[in-house]
Amino acid sequence: MDLFFNASSVAVIGVSSSPTNLGRAIVFNLMQFQYQGLIHLVGPKGGVFLGHKIYPTILDVPDPVDLAAVLVPARAVPEVIRQCGEKGVKRVVVESAGFRELGDDRRGLEREIQEALAKYNMRMIGPNCIGVINRHTGLAVPFMPMKPEADPGRVGIISQSGGVGAMAINNYAAENIGFSKFASIGNKLDVDENDILEYLVGDDQTRVIFAYLEGIADGRRLMQVAASSPKPILVHKSNRGGSGSVIARSHSASLSADDRVVDAAFRQSGILRVSDQNEALRAIKGFHLPPMKGPRLAVISRSGGHAVMAADAADEFGFQLPPFPEELIEEAERHARAGVIQFHNPMDLGDVFDLDLYKVLAAESIRRDDVDGVLFILNYQGIFDADPCRRLIVELGRIMKVAGKPIAVCVFTMHGELEVNKRAAGYPLFTDPRDALQALAWNRDFRGGPVEVFGTEPPGGIRREEARRLLEGAESGPAAPDLLAQLLDCYGIPVVAWEVAESEEEAVLAASKLGLPVALKTANPHVIHKTDAGGVFLDLTTEEEVRKAYGRLEELGPRVLVQRMAEPGLEWLVGGRRDHTFGPVVIAGLGGIYVEVFRETALRVGPLSPRQARAMLEECRGTALLRGVRGRPKLDEDALVDGVVRLSWLLHDLTEVMELDLNPVRVYEKGWVALDWRATLDNRK
Amino acid sequence: MDLFFNASSVAVIGVSSSPTNLGRAIVFNLMQFQYQGLIHLVGPKGGVFLGHKIYPTILDVPDPVDLAAVLVPARAVPEVIRQCGEKGVKRVVVESAGFRELGDDRRGLEREIQEALAKYNMRMIGPNCIGVINRHTGLAVPFMPMKPEADPGRVGIISQSGGVGAMAINNYAAENIGFSKFASIGNKLDVDENDILEYLVGDDQTRVIFAYLEGIADGRRLMQVAASSPKPILVHKSNRGGSGSVIARSHSASLSADDRVVDAAFRQSGILRVSDQNEALRAIKGFHLPPMKGPRLAVISRSGGHAVMAADAADEFGFQLPPFPEELIEEAERHARAGVIQFHNPMDLGDVFDLDLYKVLAAESIRRDDVDGVLFILNYQGIFDADPCRRLIVELGRIMKVAGKPIAVCVFTMHGELEVNKRAAGYPLFTDPRDALQALAWNRDFRGGPVEVFGTEPPGGIRREEARRLLEGAESGPAAPDLLAQLLDCYGIPVVAWEVAESEEEAVLAASKLGLPVALKTANPHVIHKTDAGGVFLDLTTEEEVRKAYGRLEELGPRVLVQRMAEPGLEWLVGGRRDHTFGPVVIAGLGGIYVEVFRETALRVGPLSPRQARAMLEECRGTALLRGVRGRPKLDEDALVDGVVRLSWLLHDLTEVMELDLNPVRVYEKGWVALDWRATLDNRK
Repeated sequence: MDLFFNASSVAVIGVSSSPTNLGRAIVFNLMQFQYQGLIHLVGPKGGVFLGHKIYPTILDVPDPVDLAAVLVPARAVPEVIRQCGEKGVKRVVVESAGFRELGDDRRGLEREIQEALAKYNMRMIGPNCIGVINRHTGLAVPFMPMKPEADPGRVGIISQSGGVGAMAINNYAAENIGFSKFASIGNKLDVDENDILEYLVGDDQTRVIFAYLEGIADGRRLMQVAASSPKPILVHKSNRGGSGSVIARSHSASLSADDRVVDAAFRQSGILRVSDQNEALRAIKGFHLPPMKGPRLAVISRSGGHAVMAADAADEFGFQLPPFPEELIEEAERHARAGVIQFHNPMDLGDVFDLDLYKVLAAESIRRDDVDGVLFILNYQGIFDADPCRRLIVELGRIMKVAGKPIAVCVFTMHGELEVNKRAAGYPLFTDPRDALQALAWNRDFRGGPVEVFGTEPPGGIRREEARRLLEGAESGPAAPDLLAQLLDCYGIPVVAWEVAESEEEAVLAASKLGLPVALKTANPHVIHKTDAGGVFLDLTTEEEVRKAYGRLEELGPRVLVQRMAEPGLEWLVGGRRDHTFGPVVIAGLGGIYVEVFRETALRVGPLSPRQARAMLEECRGTALLRGVRGRPKLDEDALVDGVVRLSWLLHDLTEVMELDLNPVRVYEKGWVALDWRATLDNRK
Repeated sequence: MDLFFNASSVAVIGVSSSPTNLGRAIVFNLMQFQYQGLIHLVGPKGGVFLGHKIYPTILDVPDPVDLAAVLVPARAVPEVIRQCGEKGVKRVVVESAGFRELGDDRRGLEREIQEALAKYNMRMIGPNCIGVINRHTGLAVPFMPMKPEADPGRVGIISQSGGVGAMAINNYAAENIGFSKFASIGNKLDVDENDILEYLVGDDQTRVIFAYLEGIADGRRLMQVAASSPKPILVHKSNRGGSGSVIARSHSASLSADDRVVDAAFRQSGILRVSDQNEALRAIKGFHLPPMKGPRLAVISRSGGHAVMAADAADEFGFQLPPFPEELIEEAERHARAGVIQFHNPMDLGDVFDLDLYKVLAAESIRRDDVDGVLFILNYQGIFDADPCRRLIVELGRIMKVAGKPIAVCVFTMHGELEVNKRAAGYPLFTDPRDALQALAWNRDFRGGPVEVFGTEPPGGIRREEARRLLEGAESGPAAPDLLAQLLDCYGIPVVAWEVAESEEEAVLAASKLGLPVALKTANPHVIHKTDAGGVFLDLTTEEEVRKAYGRLEELGPRVLVQRMAEPGLEWLVGGRRDHTFGPVVIAGLGGIYVEVFRETALRVGPLSPRQARAMLEECRGTALLRGVRGRPKLDEDALVDGVVRLSWLLHDLTEVMELDLNPVRVYEKGWVALDWRATLDNRK
């Protein structure tokens, strides 16, 4: 990837001397950002632009070229890429639109491109993108006119959409936060977000990564790359699956992913999901402060009202507000006019006009061992008091740097005055205490990677080969319940004792073997809603009842499942499915009638370690019931954890299993058992 | 209230010629805002300021004075108010701090003030505030230096905190939104938020009201005033009850209210609660657009990525995106370069450079009968294309005005360029599609008052006088269960059949009268956790069991409650309590063991109408169970609604009842019944 960002020569292909030519904007950007390498221009009509000769083809360029930025009509792209290949160009950025995002009939063009890339061993970003910027070398190939407004910064930006990426750059500049590297990846025909992400994780000039994604190329690789990162990775994943899916497809050829799975996968791999660009910016500001290593916060405010808001937000985001020590309070009281202010944490200094005291209080608070960070709220109008307040803001930056702990500074003032401070402060300012504390909370909660993303060690006693053999002849579609029960058994997942009967006599025999009472269910896998279809008879206590039930079930097919009735217990549901982006997804939650109403389940992308499975259950409020509430016994959480782990490995190993539901299962003081099981198989692969 | 805002002469009391004197800033503000009336200065040291003589006392001012703004040390305030009274001044704004907010020992000063106000029939705003501004007359008495940055606008501002109020003015000015009237109310010793709110509801120059409150003076009056308002009322209520409560008390002498009750009361009376100043500003922007009368939204975007975000947000905020009609799409396609864009709703026009077409599309969309509003997303960098884009933004304002429907315009551009547009547009601009749609959703969902806030008609058959007689001799503390059952009976609230027994024989007799099986419970109201204390015996099926149970219960006191065992049914809990700010609060939710884990209850401030009680149950997801899920029978929701209404009237009428819990109650296919009941009485009033 490095050559994309550090090419020492760039050819812009698609330049003409027409004033509406978009390729010219690429050349302008290379100039604006002061690109340090050689620039070559290519366009079929030739001519001159900004003193550069426009060569008819890349093959006519006399010097070697590292990177080509291509903006020619879609149908011309394959030939241009072949020419680049002949020329020995190893990296191309194709900015042209008009490919898969317009419809499947354009896939032929994409195939041609892929063949050319393979033939010449080239890598490509795009098509349908605005390309890359390296803020440090000035390599900037977007066709959208841009300007370097802020100094080079530490944020690496990946954006599937050029427009959104460009606006992120503008937004950061408005806060005087720059960026290090930028890549707009468009249709991701070759290079995808994972390639860039991996590069930025290893890039010394990048300390925080922000990605805007409309689709996810390879969810499992994304999770692995993210889990390896010691740097915060913020992702705004749009196209949540409703109205956005059509437009996302026509914009960047992105399919929507199941949004709950995206949530779970991000959490699991340490990706911080942000819901919009404002939240992203807030988090980025938070990560531009020194790390906050604990929850103890000192709030110093020049406004009582904002101090009250800060206290509310401190509760919301889990900060503690330890009391200020006596000596600090005494110091403050010596400077307080009229003695009308009381000192708590938050400390409301509304009546203190001595700005030096503010500085002293900030410095003394932040250096205390029992303070992990400071929220400093300064409001002033800037009509008579601008200069000392501006100086104080700069001074707070110095104090923060010395202390190596964060001071989130919140400034309330008139609009123009705020802008002056944003440019002068040298660190990001906030304009609302809640925003500031949300940012600090992100900072405080961040633990860099590498983190464990998937389970690595399957639990003991799994008979994988046997399970695979069982699946060999299986038909695609709903799985036969006896086959599925055997698969579950191979993975050590307990189901109630069962027998298959194919006649009334067999049913009676099975019932006596299992012991009455029993349940009889149709074993015809194509009957999906068994209960509604009259395919379930529970609690049969006599042979006669069994015979009668078999008689009724026979109408749905001769094969029936005879099950021993399970003891009462706490009902859960455990299941999973195969996600097209992330692979095996495990689901668990409380079962039963109440829970159908509350619908609270937790998700994880498998396979899982026991630690991960336990954390997953931890997310369900219903886990309190496992641990015994209101005098009820403690149930076997460990066994359920083990079951979830086993299920995750089953889904991981047996890729024929598309969906699997154990619903309900019952958890006991010792052990657990599935009462009903369903699965859908796909054996066509 | 009008005289506070339309005084034709103002005296500023507490001015000196010292450069650090804060009273001078009040005079500056009157000048800055171009106050149209007479200004008189008062200060004990005399002198001259800005050409005005400083009179030693208000009594020395030769002309009549409508309003006095007072900023003298707290201890001097009562005397100054008495002098104002003598002078015939009817309105005072006391900006001085140093009263109740510093501690209860300052209440003597406050009493002196109240006596003076009463004696001279005066009204006062404050103390501990920055007073009022009427943007139209220039009456502006804050002691904080301010500047009129935007034109007079339509927002009326009430702020308990001067600092927060001033910053709201700054924030609105930055968006080119002005305000009409402003009041900072501080400790609210006389005039409170309700007085100002009522005034602003009736004020022609105010169309949207924003209030920042740290405490609520009189919750029921607030609800009534708000429910009468045809204008949107946005409230940021801070001091949610945790860390903020101490600082709020020392800042504006505010006690925190139960935050869930605040939520419920606001919803019930049509107050829009905002969680911070950003959200308030967003909502205010939304209310500056013409009303959106339905959910049908057309999204026109120059950026595909932002169109995807807009679609996500449309789903989130409940907008529909009907397809664009053929003729509009054809119009757009004629202008599209290279034909690389597909037209959906959202319409992504990223490749259309003809800005006139944007104008046409906006105008044609907004005037269609099947479109209720437009979200227009314009991104441009402003390096080469600033002029036409600026003109388009102004033009969109005209189109919106003609159509009388909202166009939420979202502009993405470089920072300075954005500021230019904010000043020039003539209507508020947004900078994020999600923000814009949240604002439009507020606009769309707003139904002006008057709305029904409390139930007005108690249900039939209530025997209020009998209930009052029953309570006459009752002790404060936990209520005896038989007394409470009788009270419930007076209000037509069903409880399981019961008898009180004071001996073993009486217990046996009661059981046979009620019919076995029965439950025996201690009737000693001081045993709070009856089950834990061994005070409950359920399902007693024989006389012998009854005798044995009585023998055990006797240890807790001779009086026991014998209850008929209730049939199984769906368990709910219904209850309520008396809130110090809002009065009777009713609570309902699903009961039972699962629900203890999910803890989902709905609240309302009573008394309730059946419509309100039904809406309250509607908020509980568990109501689905009343309506029959998964083949279960439909239960008697009407009866439960009636019960909630009756309970709300009981709490309303019987002010001795501080807390009341019916937990559990059981709901059946026909009717419902309480199985256990508890209450706390306070008879000392």
